[in-house]
Amino acid sequence: MADALIIKARPLTAAAFAAYGDVLETRGRASEPMNQGWANRFRDVADVDVADNDGRVGISLVHSRADTTPVQLRLLERHPLGSQIFMPLSAHPFLVVVGVPGDVPSGDQLEAFISDGRQGVNYHKGVWHHPMIALEGASDFLIVDRSGPGNNCDESDIPGSGVEVCV
Amino acid sequence: MADALIIKARPLTAAAFAAYGDVLETRGRASEPMNQGWANRFRDVADVDVADNDGRVGISLVHSRADTTPVQLRLLERHPLGSQIFMPLSAHPFLVVVGVPGDVPSGDQLEAFISDGRQGVNYHKGVWHHPMIALEGASDFLIVDRSGPGNNCDESDIPGSGVEVCV
Repeated sequence: MADALIIKARPLTAAAFAAYGDVLETRGRASEPMNQGWANRFRDVADVDVADNDGRVGISLVHSRADTTPVQLRLLERHPLGSQIFMPLSAHPFLVVVGVPGDVPSGDQLEAFISDGRQGVNYHKGVWHHPMIALEGASDFLIVDRSGPGNNCDESDIPGSGVEVCV
Repeated sequence: MADALIIKARPLTAAAFAAYGDVLETRGRASEPMNQGWANRFRDVADVDVADNDGRVGISLVHSRADTTPVQLRLLERHPLGSQIFMPLSAHPFLVVVGVPGDVPSGDQLEAFISDGRQGVNYHKGVWHHPMIALEGASDFLIVDRSGPGNNCDESDIPGSGVEVCV
C-alpha cells in the first residue's frame, strides 16, 4: 500500500498500555502464597467491568489463524458496555492496536503493541481496538467479557488512506 | 503411606466432570466466526457464578511449582460463595481432585482427573477440591473467581488414613 501510514509495534508494558487497559502479567506485581506454599497468587491483574445494562461475565475460547507482518489494518471496534480480556494460551506473540475512547481515531492516533505471548490484555470499556492479530502460528485465547442485552460492539473504518503495522 | 487409599486419575472430559463444574475446552463445542473470519469463538464455556453476598469477578494469575505422582492429598477446600476457574497457561498437565457439595467427602468419595494441559476447569460453587496439582513443570494459571465480603473458603482434612492419587 503505497501511501499507507506505518506504525511500529512497541513492546507491551503496563505503563505504556495504561491509557487503554490492563496488561495481564506477573512482572512487577506483588504476590501472596497460595496452596500451602506450593504456588504464588497475583490478585486483581485486570479490572472486569461488565455490569452496565444488566451485563454479566462471559467466558469464551477463541482459535485464531495467524497473520504476517506488516499487517494492513482492516477496521476498528469498541465495546461501549464492557471491558474485554484476551489471555493468550498458545505462547505466540500477538499484536494489540488501540486508540483512546471517544471519536474514531485516525491512523496517526493509534498505537500498536506486541505481546510476548505470555502477556494478556484487558481493553477498558470504550477503547478502540483492532481485532486481535495472532503472529507466528495459529493461537488460542481465553476471552473474559460482557454478555447481556444491548449493542456492545461498534465498528468503524479507519479514516485516511490505510494503516500498516510492522514489528 | 502403607494404608493409603489410592485413586487413579482419569482423563478430564466434560461428561465425567459435569457433577463438579465445567471443562474449558473447544472440543465438542459449537463455534461462530469472529474477526472477519480470522478466528472462531466458542462462547460460554464456563458459568461464572460470583454474585452472592455482593461478590464481583476477580482475575488472578498463579505460578505453581510442580508435584510428582503419586501425590499424597493434603486437604480439601470449597468456596461456598462462588465458582472458580483455573485456566492453564503453560501447557503442562495438572491434576483435578473433586468431591460433590455437601458434607466433607471421604477419600473414597473423591474423584481425580488429569487435564491435558490445554483444558481448564471451573469448579461450581461449593464443590470440594484439592488445591491444584501441577505436573511436569512449574505452571502458570489464570484464575477467574469471586472477590468480595464474607468467608469464601472452607478447608478440611480428609477423613480416613490418607489418600494418594496416581496417573
